[in-house]
Amino acid sequence: MSELTLAKANTIIEIALAKAAEQKFKPLAVVVLDAGGHTIALQRQDGAPFMRHEVAAGKAFGAIAMGSSSRALGQAAIERPHFFQGLAGVSGGRIIPVPGGVLIRDASGAAVGSVGISGDTSDNDEAAAVAGIEAAGFTAGV
Amino acid sequence: MSELTLAKANTIIEIALAKAAEQKFKPLAVVVLDAGGHTIALQRQDGAPFMRHEVAAGKAFGAIAMGSSSRALGQAAIERPHFFQGLAGVSGGRIIPVPGGVLIRDASGAAVGSVGISGDTSDNDEAAAVAGIEAAGFTAGV
Amino acid sequence: MSELTLAKANTIIEIALAKAAEQKFKPLAVVVLDAGGHTIALQRQDGAPFMRHEVAAGKAFGAIAMGSSSRALGQAAIERPHFFQGLAGVSGGRIIPVPGGVLIRDASGAAVGSVGISGDTSDNDEAAAVAGIEAAGFTAGV
Amino acid sequence: MSELTLAKANTIIEIALAKAAEQKFKPLAVVVLDAGGHTIALQRQDGAPFMRHEVAAGKAFGAIAMGSSSRALGQAAIERPHFFQGLAGVSGGRIIPVPGGVLIRDASGAAVGSVGISGDTSDNDEAAAVAGIEAAGFTAGV
Repeated sequence: MSELTLAKANTIIEIALAKAAEQKFKPLAVVVLDAGGHTIALQRQDGAPFMRHEVAAGKAFGAIAMGSSSRALGQAAIERPHFFQGLAGVSGGRIIPVPGGVLIRDASGAAVGSVGISGDTSDNDEAAAVAGIEAAGFTAGV
Repeated sequence: MSELTLAKANTIIEIALAKAAEQKFKPLAVVVLDAGGHTIALQRQDGAPFMRHEVAAGKAFGAIAMGSSSRALGQAAIERPHFFQGLAGVSGGRIIPVPGGVLIRDASGAAVGSVGISGDTSDNDEAAAVAGIEAAGFTAGV
Repeated sequence: MSELTLAKANTIIEIALAKAAEQKFKPLAVVVLDAGGHTIALQRQDGAPFMRHEVAAGKAFGAIAMGSSSRALGQAAIERPHFFQGLAGVSGGRIIPVPGGVLIRDASGAAVGSVGISGDTSDNDEAAAVAGIEAAGFTAGV
Repeated sequence: MSELTLAKANTIIEIALAKAAEQKFKPLAVVVLDAGGHTIALQRQDGAPFMRHEVAAGKAFGAIAMGSSSRALGQAAIERPHFFQGLAGVSGGRIIPVPGGVLIRDASGAAVGSVGISGDTSDNDEAAAVAGIEAAGFTAGV
């Protein structure tokens, strides 16, 4: 069994930032949320503007709150903007529907949390999240 | 090194309003925020409706919070409205994505604050902000 | 007739800060609101923590919104805490009921705006506000 | 000069949690904010209920926003409950006025950020924050 402990959340962030450094991404904010959508760990790199962690959190929150990646939510928002508008309202404005919010799935497939990253392109943000999740022994739900 | 002091913020506003007077802009509200998005100084001219300084603050806040001008945020909002809708939510409804919010950069290129102006056309608002920023010895990030 | 113009609001702030400098007050935030409770001008001195202008605004807003100084509102809050609790709610949490929020009255006695100051002791904050109001040709409502 | 980088914020959290482990404190949440009150890093230990990091953030936010420790804010709240009720409102309900929110001061005495900790007694929370701040080469403002 693999629980999403603080130690694992820290590993996710560490590896995501290592990948970002290797690929010369811009400064990132990385957030890891638990299954209830509550923050376990967060790091914002030097030079990342202060709204970046709110954006990262909005991607991660949407993912775990709705049970699908923020990429999928973004597609839904494009296809049905009135749905996302309603969702923005009932969530209290806590969801950012663009790639970079990825589900953390355990071996049984259950979503035990999510990662949100913001700072570089949405695709790069997402790639860093996937790297971190997999390095910690989970499966990434994109 | 040039810090964004109150004296410099007052200079930015003074010169922005002088340019506006010279070019016969409509009454403006001008706000200067620090690097954390908190107000240093604000002036709203006689005849500017009372929401003008909130609009000016929304332009300035978006710029410093996201590290890019409100002009750039506006372009992003047009291209990806679902992203901006999410951003509006996580920011608590504090961002106005139209030109007139300009970053204040120091000699090292760091964003030390932002200026937001509202009252005339967005392009004129932005031009007044740039004039003020440059007169105070900073570089304008448009 | 003396309207509360931006020029007069700037004079109020200038004189309030001059008095503060003369008496070696701690760094202040000074806000001037119009009769509708909307900001005309604001200055936060170097070294004043970032919540100071919100506190100053809360004093000024309470004064003009209720038609009495924040000192009088504070006395009411002490005597009838349930009343202030309700007032905090209906105002949207915008009122700070301690001295330093002073009405700006014109020659006819009408409240044309208010000043709020925060940073030193409440009594000193109020004294600076009174000095600014009187220097601009108005009567201070304490 | 010592800036409050992400690396230093991580050190603060690491040492605070090491002290907590050594003294067998209950599970903690630790938050480090920058000078603008924005999160740089956050860790919530396994077993800490999910509101803990909001409490930690409320202590840290109050400290940096008002320029005094959350211990001092708590004393003010006890002496003048109507002032704190107003402050709660203008801050948008973001301040927790009990010990555990400590200013991070650099060599010049300037507040460059704050730490908030919640999970054990308020005094122990504060002691862990002080340990972390000092280990990172800063002075703790209690």
